[in-house]
Formats: sequence, structure tokens, C-alpha cells
Amino acid sequence: MATMVAIDPAERVVNAQEARRAQVLDAARVCFARSGFRGASMQEICAEAKMSPGALYRYFPSKEAIIEAIAEDERCDAAAIVETMRGDAPLLDRMVTCSIGYFAFMREAGASSLMAEISAESLRNTAIGQRFARIDDKVRATIDDILSEAVAAGEIPPIDDMNATIGLLMAAVDGIALRQIADPDLTLARIEPVLRRMLAGVLQITA
Amino acid sequence: MATMVAIDPAERVVNAQEARRAQVLDAARVCFARSGFRGASMQEICAEAKMSPGALYRYFPSKEAIIEAIAEDERCDAAAIVETMRGDAPLLDRMVTCSIGYFAFMREAGASSLMAEISAESLRNTAIGQRFARIDDKVRATIDDILSEAVAAGEIPPIDDMNATIGLLMAAVDGIALRQIADPDLTLARIEPVLRRMLAGVLQITA
Repeated sequence: MATMVAIDPAERVVNAQEARRAQVLDAARVCFARSGFRGASMQEICAEAKMSPGALYRYFPSKEAIIEAIAEDERCDAAAIVETMRGDAPLLDRMVTCSIGYFAFMREAGASSLMAEISAESLRNTAIGQRFARIDDKVRATIDDILSEAVAAGEIPPIDDMNATIGLLMAAVDGIALRQIADPDLTLARIEPVLRRMLAGVLQITA
Repeated sequence: MATMVAIDPAERVVNAQEARRAQVLDAARVCFARSGFRGASMQEICAEAKMSPGALYRYFPSKEAIIEAIAEDERCDAAAIVETMRGDAPLLDRMVTCSIGYFAFMREAGASSLMAEISAESLRNTAIGQRFARIDDKVRATIDDILSEAVAAGEIPPIDDMNATIGLLMAAVDGIALRQIADPDLTLARIEPVLRRMLAGVLQITA
């Protein structure tokens, strides 16, 4: 039996506003991926979002505010992806599954161009770059938790240098995430066994 | 005893021209790292090189010609770095030494920002990106040679999927090269033992 749900008019307004806001952010991602954070203009974003400047400025007063909102979304996405590494399966299986999920996510149109843009800004150590660098902290803390638990449970040997180990794991996975986009040889099925051996080597366990 | 060397006047002109050309390319690298390939203008490059537009255009008719020359230099640098992987030492030692040399090279001012820019252009699959993608082919062929020799010599087990293995090795090393710039924890001394385990895992040998 279908249930009728009465929607509060105030809630309907919030939903409509959220939808418009998301529409701006989607358009901005397309523009930033295409033209870069500095190359893209508010006019370009208006055109892509099919909104007037007046309408767009009601949601975001500046390009910086849009970038800030995208960084926040990226932080949430990254945190959600790394959370999939938790669970009861063997650690190596969880790490491989999580990484492959990340690679699949990066294949979505524009995701990798945006990541490359973020990487370029981070290396220039601009305000934009610094904003995105904070995304890493949450991911790093979650991986630290998971590896520490696996050590405590005797699943992997003790890790001499946890910071460097996590840094290299994240660096390698990010490098693969970027390269797979441009390299047709690197299908997920072909990445998986090599990645598995790579992670096993770092953690000093058997692939 | 000092030896006097007579320099041919024609040779002196060539050297002076080479020096001026190198001066333009150095200035252009600074500008591209700072403002991006598309953001940097010929005026900006002239100012950085302390040359008039007239003087600069004698060496390079366009920004595209400068980018082309930088891509060629990058190709030569990458080929020279990967050549250091050849030799008689154990394969793992050679691969670690070569990678660490690459990381040190990337710490030179501007090198990593330029690499991130190149990566962003490659992902957008622009003409600039395609030009730089060809750099990979030579590096890939050299690694293929070296791994195939190590397999033939019985130093490492046979490699099931050579293309994916080389792709993941290059991706991981590039990812580390970029991340180490922004992450003060990732000193070369701390990278080395983790990298060693990572490479050993991929090649299925003991670190």
C-alpha cells in the first residue's frame, strides 16, 4: 500500500535550494576540469550551469566560495571511500577493494582532471592548494587506525615507520588513479593483481 | 701547464645562441610552473628572461614552440634518469637508486609544479598533453628491457603482465615523486626502505 507523505513547504524550499546549489557545483567541476581553477571564470560557470550571474551569486558570492565547497565535497568523498577499507575481510582484500573503488570513482568524467588541477595547486602551495591538502589528514588518520588494528591483531608485522608507509601507499594509489585514466592498458582487472603484490610488499605479507 | 685552446668564431656564435636559448627555456619553466601552460603569456616569459619580445621571437616563434622544446628536454632527462637503472648491481638496488635519483631531481625548484601541469594537460588530452605522453614510451621500453633481462637471468620470476606491471611501477614512482614535494615527512631516507618493499612486492622477490 502506498503511503502518502506530506512535505513541509519549508523543506521543499530547502530541497530546491540544495538542488540549485548542486547544479552550480556540477557546472563548476566541468569548468575547472576544462579550464583550470584560475582559467575558469564565473561567467563560464554561469553559462555551464545555465544560470544568470544574479541567480548564481545568491548561492556563491565568489569563485573561491565555489572552490571551498568543492574541496569540502572532495573531503567527504575521500573519507567515504577510505571508510570502505574497514571490515572483517583480510586486510589485503579490503585495501585492494578500496583502491579499485577509488580508481573506478576517478574514471567518472572530470574527476581525474580535477584531481590533477588540485595536485598542481597543492605543489604551488597556493591558498587553493592548502585548502585541498587538509583533505589528506582525515584519510591518513583512517588508514593509520586500520593498519594499527591489523598490527595489534597480528595480521601484519609491526610497521617501522607508519607515516612514511601511509604516505607512500597514498602516493602510489594516487599515481595509479591518475595514470589509469590516460593508459588504456590499465584496466581495473589488470591493475588488481599487480596492486595486490605491491601492497603486500609494503605490508610485508604474502600476496 | 695550462693549454691554450683556440675557439673557432663560428663555434662561439653557436655557444652564445645555445646559452640564450637555454635562458628562454629556463624562464619559460618558471612561468609555466607559476602560471600554468595556458596561464603564462609570451610577455611574462620575456619579462622573466629579461629579453625583448623581438629577441625572444628569434629563438621561438610561439609559446607552442617553447613547450615543444621543454617536452624534448623532459624526454631526454627522463631517458637519462631511467638509463641509471642499467648496470651489474642487484636489480632491486638499481631500481631503488634510480627512483631516489628521480625524486631528488624532482625536488629542484619548479620541476614538480611543471610535472603536475603536464599531468593536468595529459588528462585533458590536449595537444600539449599528447606531446608529453610520448615521453613515456622511451622510459617504458627501457624498463621493459631491464625487467626482461632480469627474468632471463633468473634474478626475478617471470612477469605475467609486463605492460600492467610497468604501468603500475611508473604510476607509483610518479605519485611518490609528486607527494614527497609537499610532504615534509617524506624525506629520501624515509622513502627508501618502504619503496624497496613496494618494488620487491611487485617483482615477487625478497626486499
